[in-house]
Amino acid sequence: MNKNFLLSNETALRIYEKVRNLPIIDYHCHLSPKEIYEDMPFDNIGELWLKNDHYKWRMMRICGIDEYFITGDADWYSKFEKYASCIESAAGSPLYSWTHMELSMYFGIEEHLCRKNALDIWERANKVIEDKKLSPLKLIKQSNVKYIATTDDISDDLGYHALIAEGGDRYVKTVPSFRTDNLLLIRRKNYKDYISKLSSVSGVNIKDIKTLHEAVCQRLDFFCKLGCRFTDVGIEDFPLSSEDPSNAETAFLKALKGDYITDSEYHGFLMHMFIFLAGEYKKRSLVMQLHTGVKRNVNTRIFKAVGPDAGCDCMGSRLYIESLIRFLDEADVAGNLPETIVYCLDPSYTAPLSAAAYSFRNVRVGAAWWFCDSKRGIEDNLKTLCELGNLGIFPGMLTDSRSFLSYARHDYFRRILCSVIGEYVEKEDYDINFAYDTAKAVCYKNMNNIIGEMI
Amino acid sequence: MNKNFLLSNETALRIYEKVRNLPIIDYHCHLSPKEIYEDMPFDNIGELWLKNDHYKWRMMRICGIDEYFITGDADWYSKFEKYASCIESAAGSPLYSWTHMELSMYFGIEEHLCRKNALDIWERANKVIEDKKLSPLKLIKQSNVKYIATTDDISDDLGYHALIAEGGDRYVKTVPSFRTDNLLLIRRKNYKDYISKLSSVSGVNIKDIKTLHEAVCQRLDFFCKLGCRFTDVGIEDFPLSSEDPSNAETAFLKALKGDYITDSEYHGFLMHMFIFLAGEYKKRSLVMQLHTGVKRNVNTRIFKAVGPDAGCDCMGSRLYIESLIRFLDEADVAGNLPETIVYCLDPSYTAPLSAAAYSFRNVRVGAAWWFCDSKRGIEDNLKTLCELGNLGIFPGMLTDSRSFLSYARHDYFRRILCSVIGEYVEKEDYDINFAYDTAKAVCYKNMNNIIGEMI
Amino acid sequence: MNKNFLLSNETALRIYEKVRNLPIIDYHCHLSPKEIYEDMPFDNIGELWLKNDHYKWRMMRICGIDEYFITGDADWYSKFEKYASCIESAAGSPLYSWTHMELSMYFGIEEHLCRKNALDIWERANKVIEDKKLSPLKLIKQSNVKYIATTDDISDDLGYHALIAEGGDRYVKTVPSFRTDNLLLIRRKNYKDYISKLSSVSGVNIKDIKTLHEAVCQRLDFFCKLGCRFTDVGIEDFPLSSEDPSNAETAFLKALKGDYITDSEYHGFLMHMFIFLAGEYKKRSLVMQLHTGVKRNVNTRIFKAVGPDAGCDCMGSRLYIESLIRFLDEADVAGNLPETIVYCLDPSYTAPLSAAAYSFRNVRVGAAWWFCDSKRGIEDNLKTLCELGNLGIFPGMLTDSRSFLSYARHDYFRRILCSVIGEYVEKEDYDINFAYDTAKAVCYKNMNNIIGEMI
Repeated sequence: MNKNFLLSNETALRIYEKVRNLPIIDYHCHLSPKEIYEDMPFDNIGELWLKNDHYKWRMMRICGIDEYFITGDADWYSKFEKYASCIESAAGSPLYSWTHMELSMYFGIEEHLCRKNALDIWERANKVIEDKKLSPLKLIKQSNVKYIATTDDISDDLGYHALIAEGGDRYVKTVPSFRTDNLLLIRRKNYKDYISKLSSVSGVNIKDIKTLHEAVCQRLDFFCKLGCRFTDVGIEDFPLSSEDPSNAETAFLKALKGDYITDSEYHGFLMHMFIFLAGEYKKRSLVMQLHTGVKRNVNTRIFKAVGPDAGCDCMGSRLYIESLIRFLDEADVAGNLPETIVYCLDPSYTAPLSAAAYSFRNVRVGAAWWFCDSKRGIEDNLKTLCELGNLGIFPGMLTDSRSFLSYARHDYFRRILCSVIGEYVEKEDYDINFAYDTAKAVCYKNMNNIIGEMI
Repeated sequence: MNKNFLLSNETALRIYEKVRNLPIIDYHCHLSPKEIYEDMPFDNIGELWLKNDHYKWRMMRICGIDEYFITGDADWYSKFEKYASCIESAAGSPLYSWTHMELSMYFGIEEHLCRKNALDIWERANKVIEDKKLSPLKLIKQSNVKYIATTDDISDDLGYHALIAEGGDRYVKTVPSFRTDNLLLIRRKNYKDYISKLSSVSGVNIKDIKTLHEAVCQRLDFFCKLGCRFTDVGIEDFPLSSEDPSNAETAFLKALKGDYITDSEYHGFLMHMFIFLAGEYKKRSLVMQLHTGVKRNVNTRIFKAVGPDAGCDCMGSRLYIESLIRFLDEADVAGNLPETIVYCLDPSYTAPLSAAAYSFRNVRVGAAWWFCDSKRGIEDNLKTLCELGNLGIFPGMLTDSRSFLSYARHDYFRRILCSVIGEYVEKEDYDINFAYDTAKAVCYKNMNNIIGEMI
Repeated sequence: MNKNFLLSNETALRIYEKVRNLPIIDYHCHLSPKEIYEDMPFDNIGELWLKNDHYKWRMMRICGIDEYFITGDADWYSKFEKYASCIESAAGSPLYSWTHMELSMYFGIEEHLCRKNALDIWERANKVIEDKKLSPLKLIKQSNVKYIATTDDISDDLGYHALIAEGGDRYVKTVPSFRTDNLLLIRRKNYKDYISKLSSVSGVNIKDIKTLHEAVCQRLDFFCKLGCRFTDVGIEDFPLSSEDPSNAETAFLKALKGDYITDSEYHGFLMHMFIFLAGEYKKRSLVMQLHTGVKRNVNTRIFKAVGPDAGCDCMGSRLYIESLIRFLDEADVAGNLPETIVYCLDPSYTAPLSAAAYSFRNVRVGAAWWFCDSKRGIEDNLKTLCELGNLGIFPGMLTDSRSFLSYARHDYFRRILCSVIGEYVEKEDYDINFAYDTAKAVCYKNMNNIIGEMI
């Protein structure tokens, strides 16, 4: 890998020197605590890359690869080779960059993957895996990761987190995060079963909103005992209104019976729960993360065959600004607005969403998310936040990933960040010393302060 | 014309050398089959440029030119001179580039048009027309066009296409495309008359949805006999829902009587027909093109005076992502989703629309359309597709034009494409050999495969 | 300040030489006619910068500064120092550029403000204020401002404007603009009181729509006597429909009684008044400015503590294109569409809004507004207008500001404009002589023609 990769100006090189070796705080990801705990060596690069990565699956599907080689029964090498053939034409895709950054950083391979050299690269990469007995913790250590916050359902028993905690921090502090999607999706068919599980794990017999609150608080306290500092939600809907507070109770009781829930009941429940959760987070100094505007599992055929997280998600319709404002304002008026990070999936929505978020104290817009996590997407995200807010409060990069190789994305982000700031220095006369400090704040200090203050 | 025009980096020059001479496949345009068949020499550059070009009319109106010199009775030179005066301040407009590319490529004129040199350029251009007896086929030949798919109403008798086919392919294969706008716009005042015409031309007495289907199939088969491989629709609305299938029949019967059609009936009809057409296209291996999000004839005064296609169209409100997904998914579940190209008119909508489209196999996002067909619009379109999809499957450039001079736009596109890919090579380490292959695929091979497979 | 600041290419330097010294026509701002008339010397740079500037307040809040140092009782130096600490990390913010341009242009200070040098800069800036007895008119004169149009409620007695007019134009022509927000916001609690004031100042006993019209016309004529040439509206809502014209009367009568007004009555009233006002503006050759898509005072806590214009406004939901078109078309059909400038707050909306606006004669899209008034925002605004319209008709820059120092923003704009045009010359072969003329038209000539023709 060219050492100036993505560093687009002279000043960027200088700034990058100040941040390249800072530790990584991965405060939002989908890594498996089980895999971190067990720390089993990997088998081969095909499995490592293609077992769970719906980004790669999606691109292969776009290129017309048969499902047999994506999520089907083909052997790992065949899948790897098919992926190699797709990456050749993936100009400008973040997958192209990530693929080659990972090959370079973790396997010492500098060639560009293609169908022709797929077998050679497969063999050399697998040799590295074998020689080094590459495993989750080895990759974590090599990547200089200091902190990992996984994403866990609130009904999770956090068994592996407990085991990790017992074993002491092996290179990295690993903590759970409180993810409420399943709690909130009361229109799902098996919602009753979920509440049964939640009753059981919390020791609270959930039969109405009041007992639901109790169970949630029990889970929050349990998560906090294992170091939880971040919460998250990423459902498709955002509460549109809360005009009639009785809707929440009605909706929840209907959900327990499996009855039909109207839109206004549903949104009444959502708004009620969003406000309630915000207040409980605030009490416990937890950071509230809102992932907005996603549309999931849109391809029925693939969903039936492969399930969720299969690479068939997309950007949803734009959230109404009025809804976001109503929620933030209502929580704020009640004194219940915790430290908040809002993420946005549609790049054309970054500006209006930021303008709304920055109208409230302690609400920050987060890093470029998912489909926006490309070079241009990150640049646009950063520039928008610079223009509408202040770069100095940016909460920092996260991987949002299921892969232990994806720590390369922190380097990807840092290079782009340094180029953006360097351009401000060179083109808009931003002070170089301010630039160093701001880059360090964004790459490490801001989030270290947040987790430090909280710990 | 500077030979490096629009080639913004060294690598772009190298890539451009590989694609500049590839043949043009113009798979979507509004050229007249009559004019192609008759191949009459042109009269003067004023008529050639200003008789039908609503892009130019619109700019002249924006600059305050009196309608007399736009669509009124002024002589061609006066119109040409007025246009020249507007082009002086048209910095950054694609019209500025196209105007000078056309002057250079087809008339050997390198000066920049302005009011002062309008008469001189008028005389020199007209001399070229006269000396070379410039005609449609001469321009087509000079432009190295291999394939033209015109856009034809499904009730068209395709008389000129038949004559062209009888005469053999003079330099270029010319085929009709199946455009269903008039079929679908059942709320229009004279819809009954349209159905009468369709009954007559198809030989099917259309009196309900079933016979409508029969007539459509008859037309499809007729179009296919003349080589049709592409279909198209570009109405303002997109079907929002199809919850009650009986709506389609109700709506159509009302349309035949000229009765008022409710929104839900209208959308029921649209969804029904979209799904039906998709299935019939799939059976015949036709490509389904969807032009979404246009708002037409918004200026009543101009519409009454000049009619449609007068330069008073604009971007419509954003299509709801949910609608697009519902349609694509429903067709896909039924096994009725053909090879599909979706076009988008609002640049801020390219990303969400692409993310939705790429969740389905064989659905591609098309080239930057109409208002997006500028340097920056094309760049943004390409980069978005690179980031969210894979450049290697891009279906290629088309002119969408009424003018035989507009083949210059293929060169415009190729130069911008090469600059975008070259930038990826230089800035993001994209492999130069992959770059050559991908550029060739986008400029020619992909669409040649599509029409080849189909032919 | 680097003399090439923001001039990003060689050609930009050449173009900038042609426009840098052109007079400023500030045809839309929020300067106080009282302050212009009284022309009192300023006291200190803290008050000058932080007394009214909600841009700065907002950034300080984003950075977590306590309200005591923003709108609270802290002394001016403490506030200044806090602002200095925030500006250090404000990479890419227009505030960073404006702050240093103002320090350089008006105080001869070239250092970059930060917490460390805050006291030094405070003392040097205040010494300049004292030595030069800096005052509104001195800044106006130094900035080469030729024309100022303030923004005035239609019930204003324009007392200071009358005094300014009596005193003759001291360096600058200062005129009122006709702002109708308070007239249109009939759902506000104290609307009756506003109408009482309007009755009183107009001498018309307002009791229905007819008398409301009379009062408005009286005010318009009064404003025109004092040189008014621009009107403005910047309410959150845009009339969605006018299907039932009786709604306007109903809504207004309800407003006078303080009764609840339905959405359809409200929009009926808005559409009626928009059309009525457009017609009256046209009769008087006034320019109609429409500021669309704002959402105001979204933070209830700050609104209660500080009031409006406190830095808690944001972009509203997108205006429906259909609404804008309906209004423009209806006014146009009635022959009542005056010279119009539309402004847009959400950058992703510039393209669709422009496409709609440019479908009507004499409707122009205005300069990048408020949250868009950054380097990238201005570039994007200009490029969009170049691509979709014609740069030659751009109405020019305005400050939209409450601060006499903000004339620096005209220089900010001119540098960015020259860079954009210079890039078109260098990258897209735009003619350099056309470039000079277009830049001059945009910076001065176009608006000078408008105010000249009207005066």
